[in-house]
Amino acid sequence: MTLTLLGTGNVQGSPVYGCLCNACERARCEPKYRRRLCSAMLQVAGHTLLIDANRSDLCERFAANSISAILLTHYHMDHVQSLFQLRWSKVAPIPVYQPNDDKGCDDLFKHPGILAFQPANEMGREFCLPSLPDLRITALALNHSKPCNGYLFNYSNATLAYLTDTCELPKATWQALHKASPQYIAIDCSFAPGTVDHNHNNLTQVLAMAKAMPKSHWLLTHIGHDLDAYLMQHTPSLPDNITIARDEMTLTLA
Amino acid sequence: MTLTLLGTGNVQGSPVYGCLCNACERARCEPKYRRRLCSAMLQVAGHTLLIDANRSDLCERFAANSISAILLTHYHMDHVQSLFQLRWSKVAPIPVYQPNDDKGCDDLFKHPGILAFQPANEMGREFCLPSLPDLRITALALNHSKPCNGYLFNYSNATLAYLTDTCELPKATWQALHKASPQYIAIDCSFAPGTVDHNHNNLTQVLAMAKAMPKSHWLLTHIGHDLDAYLMQHTPSLPDNITIARDEMTLTLA
Ligand SMILES: [Mn+2]
Ligand SMILES: [Mn+2]
Ligand SMILES: [Mn+2]
Ligand SMILES: [Mn+2]
Ligand SMILES: [Zn+2]
Ligand SMILES: [Zn+2]
Repeated sequence: MTLTLLGTGNVQGSPVYGCLCNACERARCEPKYRRRLCSAMLQVAGHTLLIDANRSDLCERFAANSISAILLTHYHMDHVQSLFQLRWSKVAPIPVYQPNDDKGCDDLFKHPGILAFQPANEMGREFCLPSLPDLRITALALNHSKPCNGYLFNYSNATLAYLTDTCELPKATWQALHKASPQYIAIDCSFAPGTVDHNHNNLTQVLAMAKAMPKSHWLLTHIGHDLDAYLMQHTPSLPDNITIARDEMTLTLA
Repeated sequence: MTLTLLGTGNVQGSPVYGCLCNACERARCEPKYRRRLCSAMLQVAGHTLLIDANRSDLCERFAANSISAILLTHYHMDHVQSLFQLRWSKVAPIPVYQPNDDKGCDDLFKHPGILAFQPANEMGREFCLPSLPDLRITALALNHSKPCNGYLFNYSNATLAYLTDTCELPKATWQALHKASPQYIAIDCSFAPGTVDHNHNNLTQVLAMAKAMPKSHWLLTHIGHDLDAYLMQHTPSLPDNITIARDEMTLTLA
């Protein structure tokens, strides 16, 4: 099971158009510091699953009919924008797993094209792709302004959680996470310490969570330019079980 | 006054993901035949105006604070998708002129960010950017599934109309067009002859319009892969006042 972070930025991405902060200037000069909108790819047993769909180069990056399924976290535009062109393509229907959100985004439900929207995932209940029964997937509720799914993946002995967008975690999700004790947890860490927001974590909140679950390795994603600028200025020494994610970073789990 | 076609494709663009038709295969092999989503740029007296905003590379293509205004034709996603990231940028507010559509697209009106939405244009009534009084702009009604503006531009002795998305033209627009007798008319020509659609023109419809206004040069845009495939197969000899547009084509008007 291999996770690739296709994007690790928040809704603005990095560099932010017109921003002259240190983080944005660095991202302009050194492409490795750029952050695309937040999404990921999971490769398991010859299957490719997307977690959210927002890369502008999706159709160049993935050969036609190579995407087995799309798992959506939620219907904010920065997570689903690629669906609008993908729906009119000439590939076989792509199953789209989704949170329980009647509205979806704009007219996606009215004109789904080749997107095969699945019944909303029931929180905490394991499911799988029919063609990939060995990958067990569990949707976990998150705290966000729209209905929002985190996902827990189990394959063989490997366990991985992907948790964006969220501000801290609902109690049931926290309990499920403790029980699963995932090797890796990718988590929304949008803001620098001191920035309080009801929809996203700041670094202080994530550090507290990581301290409470020290056996998991925490991968910080959905990062805003302000947090990058903070990290450049303060270079805090982070615990060993924390990594600041970068675009195209890959994790291979046994 | 210079018009640059930033994209000349329909909602699918070309190549269509997974399509193996002759037009899509050609576009894959020869990038000059690719068609991005339909939009344009008008450069006048040191100002840059965008007509629709859908290029995925908008923030790389245009230096920060170099866009004087955005004129929207309508709120279909394939015409406005770039606004969702642009709104959260760190540039000065950008005036956005728009059709009379209360809904807009998704949550753009709720969270406009730096987008300065202007009162809806009144059809047939001339307006201008305060900083560019010599460019006279007139919104013209189009026939589409959403409220949709064409735009007529007058600058010095140059006249240009931009008319997407539309199926033929409302009578008042046709009359305004006759009266203005623009040097160039960029028009929606999505489909091959025989494809009938209430929202877009086919080639037969556009040929009839161009015949009725022979003094104008008609630039066919918003082109679907099926029309390109038709043109490859039939290579019809088109009247002298018709050009099939290509991405990045520029017209400089006296
Ligand atoms: Mn987000
Ligand atoms: Mn969100
Ligand atoms: Mn269109
Ligand atoms: Mn349209
Ligand atoms: Zn910045
Ligand atoms: Zn095709």
